[in-house]
Amino acid sequence: MMKTIGVIGAGSWGTALAITLSNKGHNVKICDVNAEHLAEMRTNRENVRYLPGIKFCDNLHMVDSAQEALEGADVALFSAPAQHFRSAFEGALPYLTDDMVVVNVAKGIEQGTLMRLSEIAYALKPDVKYVVLSGPSHAEEVGKALPTTVAVASKDMELAEYIQDIFMTDRFRVYTNDDVCGVELGGALKNIIALGAGISDGIGFGDNAKAALMTRGITEMCRLGVKLGADIATFSGLTGIGDLIVTCTSMHSRNRRCGIMIGEGIKPSEAVEKVGMVVEGMFTAEAAYELAKRVGVEMPITECIYECINERISAKDAVDMLMGRDKKNEKHIN
Amino acid sequence: MMKTIGVIGAGSWGTALAITLSNKGHNVKICDVNAEHLAEMRTNRENVRYLPGIKFCDNLHMVDSAQEALEGADVALFSAPAQHFRSAFEGALPYLTDDMVVVNVAKGIEQGTLMRLSEIAYALKPDVKYVVLSGPSHAEEVGKALPTTVAVASKDMELAEYIQDIFMTDRFRVYTNDDVCGVELGGALKNIIALGAGISDGIGFGDNAKAALMTRGITEMCRLGVKLGADIATFSGLTGIGDLIVTCTSMHSRNRRCGIMIGEGIKPSEAVEKVGMVVEGMFTAEAAYELAKRVGVEMPITECIYECINERISAKDAVDMLMGRDKKNEKHIN
Repeated sequence: MMKTIGVIGAGSWGTALAITLSNKGHNVKICDVNAEHLAEMRTNRENVRYLPGIKFCDNLHMVDSAQEALEGADVALFSAPAQHFRSAFEGALPYLTDDMVVVNVAKGIEQGTLMRLSEIAYALKPDVKYVVLSGPSHAEEVGKALPTTVAVASKDMELAEYIQDIFMTDRFRVYTNDDVCGVELGGALKNIIALGAGISDGIGFGDNAKAALMTRGITEMCRLGVKLGADIATFSGLTGIGDLIVTCTSMHSRNRRCGIMIGEGIKPSEAVEKVGMVVEGMFTAEAAYELAKRVGVEMPITECIYECINERISAKDAVDMLMGRDKKNEKHIN
Repeated sequence: MMKTIGVIGAGSWGTALAITLSNKGHNVKICDVNAEHLAEMRTNRENVRYLPGIKFCDNLHMVDSAQEALEGADVALFSAPAQHFRSAFEGALPYLTDDMVVVNVAKGIEQGTLMRLSEIAYALKPDVKYVVLSGPSHAEEVGKALPTTVAVASKDMELAEYIQDIFMTDRFRVYTNDDVCGVELGGALKNIIALGAGISDGIGFGDNAKAALMTRGITEMCRLGVKLGADIATFSGLTGIGDLIVTCTSMHSRNRRCGIMIGEGIKPSEAVEKVGMVVEGMFTAEAAYELAKRVGVEMPITECIYECINERISAKDAVDMLMGRDKKNEKHIN
C-alpha cells in the first residue's frame, strides 16, 4: 500500500519526515518556497542546511511547486512554520483534492487571530480531511532513524488510523488520538516553557529549577487547554509532557537555545538572530498570553516569560516572582 | 518559630536538608550509622564524601546516636535509604515522642513485603504523625541553595502545613498535598524509569526515545498508582512527572548513571559497584514488578527493565520489544 506524499516545506522537520516516508518505500515529492535551498538539496541529495549528513533515497524527489508536489498525491504534508501555515495552505488550496488527506506538523498559534492551525484549515476548506502529527521528535534524530514516538490526531479516527499506517515503522512509532485541540495546544505551548527552561539554564540554575518550571508549566498548559475544549489526558501524553520534556532538555531545541542566551543576558532580538532558524516560542508566547487573557485563565509562567522576552522584566526578576508566590497546595488552581 | 530537628542519616539528601534547615535558623542535629563518616563531618564541618564544598553553619550539630538526635526534637527527619527505613525507624522508635512529627524523605518500596514506607511507619507506630517529603530535588543543588520545589504530603493536612512552614525558604519552595500513597509511589517508581532512561542513553539512543520512555513510563506509574488508591493528579505534579524529569535527565541521578553503564554493556552488578552509592531503582524494580503482578496491572516498561537488570534480556532486546508492540491509541489502557 505504498502512497504518494507531497511535502510542503523543506525545513529540518519536513525533510526528516520525507526521509522516513521515502525510506519506507513511499513516493515522496518535496517543495519549498526557497528555490535556492531546494536546488541545493537536488544537487546534493541531502539537506545540507538543516539536516546534514543524511542522504536521500531514490524515491524522494525535489519538485518546484506545491502544484507539482500535490499532483496525484494521497497525502499533503504541511511542514511550513506555524506563522506561515495560512499562506502555505492558501497556496496549496487549488491542488488539494477532496480525497487527499492533509497532515500538518507545524506547532504554534497564529498571531493576531489567535487561531489554532486546524481552525485555519477548516476556515479555508471546511471539508478538509485534517490530521495533526505531533510529539517528542527532534528532526535530527528522526532523520537518523533513532527510536521516536509521535501521535496523530483527527476528529475522524479512521483518518488518524490511515495516517498511522502510512507513517509507522519499527523506529517511528505512531499512536492515534482523537483530541485535535489538545494535541495542537501541547505542541504550541511547550515552546514557551522551553524558552523559560533555557532562561533558567542560562542564568545558571539547575535541574531542580527546570523540572519545577516544566511541571508547573504543564499545569498551566492544562488549565488553558481544558478551558478551550481539550481533553486533560492529552497533556499527560506524548504531545504534552513528552514533547515538553524533549524540548526543554535537549540542545536540539531552538527555543531552549534561544532562552539560554536570554538567561545569559543577551537581548531577546539578538538571541533569535543567533539561533538562525524560526524560534516559534517567541510568537506563541504573545498569542498564548492574549488567549489566556481572553478566556480568563491564570498562566503565571507564560506571563513572566512573555514579559521577559519583551524586556519588561529581567530573567532573574521572573524567577524571583515565580519562587516568591504564596504558599500553595499543589493541586489548587493557581 | 525556630524548631529543633533531628536528622537520621547523613547521606547527600539528609545533609542537604540539614544544611537548608540550619541555614534558615533551625537547630539541627544529624546522626549516621557510619561513625567514621560522622567524625569526618564533625572535623571538616562539611560532608566531604557526598556533598563536598558546602560548609555547615553553627547550628548544624553532628551527634552520635538517634537518641541524641531526637532528644527535645520537634521533627524527626528520616533520610536513610528506603531498604533501611524499617531498621532506622525501629531504632528511633523509643525516642519518638507522641507530638514529634516524622518526616520521611526516602523513596522506595520495601523488597519482600512490598510495603510503602508510610505503611511500615504506621505498622510500627499506629499513631505516628507522618509526613512524606518528595519532589524534583537533587541534593547537590539544594545544598547550593539553587531554586527547588518539593511537595509534603500527609493524611493530616495540618501536619503538612506545619512542615511546609518549617522547611520553606525563598529558594526551597514547598507545596502541600494530601495524597501520601501517590507521592510515595511517584518517588519510588521513577527510579525504575530512570534506570531505563540511562539504558537508552547508554545504547546511544537520543532524546526522542528517552522522552517516549518517560511519557509511557508515567502512564504505567499512574496505572499502578490508581489501582493502589493514589490520586491520578498527583502523578502530574512535582512528585510525579517533576521528579521523573529531574531523575531521567540529570547526571546527578545515580539510577540514570547506573543505567547508562548497563546500556553501554557493563554487567548490572558491576555498574552498581561503580556508582558507589545506593541505586534504589535496582530494588524498586523488583518490588514494582511483584506488586504489578499481585494487583494485575500491565507495566511493560518496568517489566522490560526488570528483565534487563537481571540479565535475562539484553538492553537492545528490551527496546525492540517496546518499539515493536502493536499499533495503539495513546489513551487506551496498555
